Amino acid sequence: MVNFKEDERLNVLNHSCAHMMAQAVKHLWPNAKFWVGPVVETGFYYDIDLGDKVINDEDIVAIEREMKKIAKDGKKIIRHEISKKEALEMFKDDPYKIDLITRMDEDTTTISIYSQGDFTDLCRGPHVDSVKECKNFKLLKFSGAYWKGDVANKVLQRIYGVCFPTEEELTAYLQELEDAKIRDHRKLGKELGIFMTHDLIGKGLPMYLPNGYIIWEELENYIKGKEKRLGYQHVLTPPLGTSDLYRTSGHLEHYKDSMFPMMEVEGEEFFLRPMNCPHHMMIYGNEIHSYRDLPIRIGEIARDCRFEASGSLKGIERARTFCQNDAHLFVTKEQIESEFKSVVNLILEVYKDLGITNYRFELSLRDPDDKVKYYPDDEMWNSAENILREVLNNIGISYEEKVGEAAFYGPKLDVQVKPAVGNEYTLSTCQLDFCLPMRFNLTYVDSDGTKKTPVVLHRAILGSIDRFIAYYLEERKGALPLWLSPVQVAILPVSNEHHSVYAHEVAAALKELDIRVLLDDRDEKLGYRMRESQTKKIPISLVIGNNEVENKTVTMRLYGHEDKETLPLAEFISSVSSKIKNRDLDL
Amino acid sequence: MVNFKEDERLNVLNHSCAHMMAQAVKHLWPNAKFWVGPVVETGFYYDIDLGDKVINDEDIVAIEREMKKIAKDGKKIIRHEISKKEALEMFKDDPYKIDLITRMDEDTTTISIYSQGDFTDLCRGPHVDSVKECKNFKLLKFSGAYWKGDVANKVLQRIYGVCFPTEEELTAYLQELEDAKIRDHRKLGKELGIFMTHDLIGKGLPMYLPNGYIIWEELENYIKGKEKRLGYQHVLTPPLGTSDLYRTSGHLEHYKDSMFPMMEVEGEEFFLRPMNCPHHMMIYGNEIHSYRDLPIRIGEIARDCRFEASGSLKGIERARTFCQNDAHLFVTKEQIESEFKSVVNLILEVYKDLGITNYRFELSLRDPDDKVKYYPDDEMWNSAENILREVLNNIGISYEEKVGEAAFYGPKLDVQVKPAVGNEYTLSTCQLDFCLPMRFNLTYVDSDGTKKTPVVLHRAILGSIDRFIAYYLEERKGALPLWLSPVQVAILPVSNEHHSVYAHEVAAALKELDIRVLLDDRDEKLGYRMRESQTKKIPISLVIGNNEVENKTVTMRLYGHEDKETLPLAEFISSVSSKIKNRDLDL
Repeated sequence: MVNFKEDERLNVLNHSCAHMMAQAVKHLWPNAKFWVGPVVETGFYYDIDLGDKVINDEDIVAIEREMKKIAKDGKKIIRHEISKKEALEMFKDDPYKIDLITRMDEDTTTISIYSQGDFTDLCRGPHVDSVKECKNFKLLKFSGAYWKGDVANKVLQRIYGVCFPTEEELTAYLQELEDAKIRDHRKLGKELGIFMTHDLIGKGLPMYLPNGYIIWEELENYIKGKEKRLGYQHVLTPPLGTSDLYRTSGHLEHYKDSMFPMMEVEGEEFFLRPMNCPHHMMIYGNEIHSYRDLPIRIGEIARDCRFEASGSLKGIERARTFCQNDAHLFVTKEQIESEFKSVVNLILEVYKDLGITNYRFELSLRDPDDKVKYYPDDEMWNSAENILREVLNNIGISYEEKVGEAAFYGPKLDVQVKPAVGNEYTLSTCQLDFCLPMRFNLTYVDSDGTKKTPVVLHRAILGSIDRFIAYYLEERKGALPLWLSPVQVAILPVSNEHHSVYAHEVAAALKELDIRVLLDDRDEKLGYRMRESQTKKIPISLVIGNNEVENKTVTMRLYGHEDKETLPLAEFISSVSSKIKNRDLDL
Repeated sequence: MVNFKEDERLNVLNHSCAHMMAQAVKHLWPNAKFWVGPVVETGFYYDIDLGDKVINDEDIVAIEREMKKIAKDGKKIIRHEISKKEALEMFKDDPYKIDLITRMDEDTTTISIYSQGDFTDLCRGPHVDSVKECKNFKLLKFSGAYWKGDVANKVLQRIYGVCFPTEEELTAYLQELEDAKIRDHRKLGKELGIFMTHDLIGKGLPMYLPNGYIIWEELENYIKGKEKRLGYQHVLTPPLGTSDLYRTSGHLEHYKDSMFPMMEVEGEEFFLRPMNCPHHMMIYGNEIHSYRDLPIRIGEIARDCRFEASGSLKGIERARTFCQNDAHLFVTKEQIESEFKSVVNLILEVYKDLGITNYRFELSLRDPDDKVKYYPDDEMWNSAENILREVLNNIGISYEEKVGEAAFYGPKLDVQVKPAVGNEYTLSTCQLDFCLPMRFNLTYVDSDGTKKTPVVLHRAILGSIDRFIAYYLEERKGALPLWLSPVQVAILPVSNEHHSVYAHEVAAALKELDIRVLLDDRDEKLGYRMRESQTKKIPISLVIGNNEVENKTVTMRLYGHEDKETLPLAEFISSVSSKIKNRDLDL
């Protein structure tokens, strides 16, 4: 989704539209007084004092009608500069504007105002030339808002809107907004019984319900299986460590603000871990390694806990605890290339398996001029960055280079995706690290008998399982592939009396193969149950009636399809189990 | 193992033997002064002040020799009662005895002393008649110990020993001790690469190494599979909750001492959870339930964290964080019987699958006279206790009734097992709970339309996965069944040059079926590699030589067996995969 604040063209237009909305409000409620009307990421809003009046849906319709009129009238928007004194005189009846003017920098001498027909507002600008340009707008929502955000103050009326240069852009945006609302993982998560949150458990601590855990388990088994075949070894480590551990790793110095507070027990200081790298370093360090043992690949579905401000929490996409699909690859310098390549290929393979296409690669490099931030080994940096670049070029994937975006400990590759609502985030990552192995004194004995420090590749393919489920639900609008669906097959006997026995036989045959079945033999009309099966996004619904009982068949309807197909039970079972086994994306 | 403190006969004998040891020490070091010599669970010890002398192995041999002499001499042990004043006079040169006497109750007037030949000690008694009875003893270890356990005090010499009525009993006990040392899960855990601990991670926070996590994963999948077939639904919930959650559940009131300290974030108070019951209550409460939905069975391999004093930590048997194989069954009163029965049957089935035979059942009931501790609903208690008893009787398992041992919220069934070292503990449990559902206002709508409170069965079959692994390693002396073994098949080519190609073929064929293989083609003698394969307790070792290459066979040696068997590769593969699939206990 577009960012109105960052897109300069939209920013100016929306700001002008906010003025136009204020003008319309002033026409309808001449006593209205105006606080501020900024452009934010999602459009514009204006905070308005309407006395005791509280805005309702009908008011919004009236304001929009008035705005249309003003836009059609098409007055020019004209800028004037006046002195602070003149401004204080001009707005003397408006305590909000007086508040703004008096709080301006002391050395402010001239103030700009913008006028359009009968409306004038204090404003830094810039604006579009004429209100005519603001005609493709939509008011989206309204709410009360405390003046200056302080609960001790008066409640103002806040109205939100968006404005686009063309009608087509507006329509497309509104459609996108509608889609986003529908596919927001928080909405889907609730509707499909994926997860719940509750303040008694705690903010940012989602709980996976049975349907959600089925998805989790399938994803966990899937990715661990892939990793095992690549020689990864999985471990299980506790979600806490001592303060000395995080002093050694540097987290206490660099990352403390994102950590839960310390717990002291028997004089030992414990922290919930924000990352599990230190644990994996300690596992590597538990044995003496020869160059022959490398690469060593330590993987874990690892529980981490981070302090996130409550305002930034978002379902399972951003929570205070989550499980990373994490791994640390301990390699020699010479192995960086092949291991990095293997990680990139794994990412591509997993995305292909899961039908993920909507992403982009970012290669974060150091800024060679920044001698403070980056670990000082020019040769290491140059060589590593060249290796990464070369691997990406050889595989033939396109990526954006971000100079100065690397972590202090090494360059990294990120895969960026966009959620239904809000900002882009990183789904998969592979980061080189020259520093952590040194901090933990990790070594291997090289072929010449000398001790060397391994390089570490931190990598996460599904990112965190939590965030991945959020992303995937949104991408697929809740309709998961067969193998990931909490219920894979719904069985709907037309009549409970006549078709129940066979329906149970079908269910038993499927369950025998560990296929997840819902036998819906409630005393409800078939149409009702079929609709519910679609609402729950169950991939396959089987209707069992007289024909099916007689011929030992099933009549199958696939999710999102209208047509039905009748086929012998045995054939259906063999087809459905092979699709699950192969993790087919198509039904 | 026997408990010397609780076994009255052994208690007296060992106490007398402690005196005899003191006498021997006094013979060897006439200036020795004695603090206390109690009987503890594992035998007796005596804390002795030898000035600057520090006991060593040779001293122990000398003391044992002197003790033998005293025992052979066979003096009577004679009790005298003297006044406090006389005692103070008698021991006036011994500051330790003076300390003991002056700290006795003020109303103590007479004090007992025991004499045997040239040795007299202050003692409450009782003792055996003659030192002759103490002849079957063994001194086991020695260490320094601060006087009164205070690091500010002098270090005394502590010597431990055991004594038995007969030589046979002593020999058997020493053998048992030797076995226990060998099968202690902490020793096996290290040798077999199961888990590691490190003070930088934190005391009581074990980390599972790759071999350990394989066992974990297999056990997790095994038990979840069993539970799924019984209609359990699995969830995943975070290892922390708010203080309000634990106020609601009652944990803050009753269990705070076992919890990690509070963490405050943005005004919210978080605790690491000691149990996950409250989370599961909230999941049940997330939806409205009809009597038709019950029983609802919520299961989870749930991470919990408890504060355990560092002194009581013990590998993965008793740690500060662990994952319970937990489930909460929400049932109507009428369903208690069938669900309890199903849980008991599951326990028996799992124990049979895993070959566990060394356990005993305990049925903990309320004390009907204790009106304070127990939830006051006589009818509920009587009915529930009768149901549990009846189920157990009908299944035909023997159990011990423990009146007054029930939790305040309901009766319970525990399965008790003995570890290699230390006290018995509970492996599996099933507890009825009338209270927690009420605390969380949980309800279901009954057939008559009224709201009722479900009863909850808390149950854990493998207990915690951690503790189960500890137990199972000890029971099996580290030799796990094929399906649980981290490495299932070792492949040993006789010569790397001639047999490597085929050895790799064999390995690939097994890996294709997800069989865990170690191809040991190191440049070491076959005998050396075979011994290592036995040390690592790998169930199956395959030798690949000329014959095997020529005939496409393998020569198989099973763990703990001397004989070998040669069979066609295809036959071996089919046999080994079927054994793994069926989770056979026998190789």
